[in-house]
Amino acid sequence: MSNAAIDFYLDFVSPYAYLASLRIDEMAARHDRDVAWRPIMLGAVFKVVGTEPIVNYPLKGPYAERDLARSARQLGIEIRLPEGFPHATLAAARGFYWLTDADPGKAKPFARAFFATYFQEGRNATPAEDTAKVAASVGVDEAAFLDAVQDVAIKDRLKAETSAAMDRGVFGAPFMFVDGEPFWGSDRLDQVERWIETGGW
Amino acid sequence: MSNAAIDFYLDFVSPYAYLASLRIDEMAARHDRDVAWRPIMLGAVFKVVGTEPIVNYPLKGPYAERDLARSARQLGIEIRLPEGFPHATLAAARGFYWLTDADPGKAKPFARAFFATYFQEGRNATPAEDTAKVAASVGVDEAAFLDAVQDVAIKDRLKAETSAAMDRGVFGAPFMFVDGEPFWGSDRLDQVERWIETGGW
Repeated sequence: MSNAAIDFYLDFVSPYAYLASLRIDEMAARHDRDVAWRPIMLGAVFKVVGTEPIVNYPLKGPYAERDLARSARQLGIEIRLPEGFPHATLAAARGFYWLTDADPGKAKPFARAFFATYFQEGRNATPAEDTAKVAASVGVDEAAFLDAVQDVAIKDRLKAETSAAMDRGVFGAPFMFVDGEPFWGSDRLDQVERWIETGGW
Repeated sequence: MSNAAIDFYLDFVSPYAYLASLRIDEMAARHDRDVAWRPIMLGAVFKVVGTEPIVNYPLKGPYAERDLARSARQLGIEIRLPEGFPHATLAAARGFYWLTDADPGKAKPFARAFFATYFQEGRNATPAEDTAKVAASVGVDEAAFLDAVQDVAIKDRLKAETSAAMDRGVFGAPFMFVDGEPFWGSDRLDQVERWIETGGW
């Protein structure tokens, strides 16, 4: 049996990615798997696919908010969309990749803290200065974080990850790969677990 | 506790509606509920919402075919998309509504037979003459069926059902309402059942 990591593609603005983030590492750990979190720029992906954020569509948008709240309550949490949702989450995505190299132990704690700020507090922490404060709350140097998210190499890293994701077929978030098999949506996590348990069907 | 019927909106061209159709009546029966099948014209709905059939989108289309096959295999079946998929399924939708009045006991058997022809045999039975033959296979008079699907009142009924569905927020298929609560997608059937069991959360 493979023990390869699960690739977990996300955008910090995706509430369904947030829901998946609350369960995926624990699920993977039950099967001795790691989870590689991979932020991407969903806006750039949507341009290629020809889609829009779900909240922009008539009928579909209002349903999505209801489905989201209901799916969150099923997990025992309340979800709050910050005023002006959706925002661009470049600083969070770039900062995450910087941390994976500079201080890997803080990457996921930062990511979880950002998700919690955005979707539990319902606070728009997407401006770089606010994102840096979220990083500081998990022990990251605020000034170094602010420098990093303006670093050309880090900016390029995020672009490259987004492009590579699309090369693999990623068109939304959350998007997971398990042993090469693609799964889209937080509502596919049970299938992901079953795929791991059975080796596929 | 309510025993109101579950409204089940579908288009006979939707493979996910087909998957839901294989489970929804049995699930509902476990909870003493009926299921009211309500065909709609998804093409007309998509125009209003600004979306397209999922197979038309780059990246999303190929994934959908894979996800569909995988979800079908999980239910123990193989699914086949007829050559030229997706087709307009007007005759099937109109014929269904005609049967609900003319010979209600044959409406769901016809619907199931049509789904099976289209997605199990993988045969495009959408031309009215072919749809009528499917109806004949469950004991419906073929000539009467062909007349009915050209009847203005029946055509108007399908338009009215589609319009009423959108008024309730329907933007895709399958789409279910349980005691007023909307659920989109065959992957929400477990939530639908839990909603019935718990009265909502």
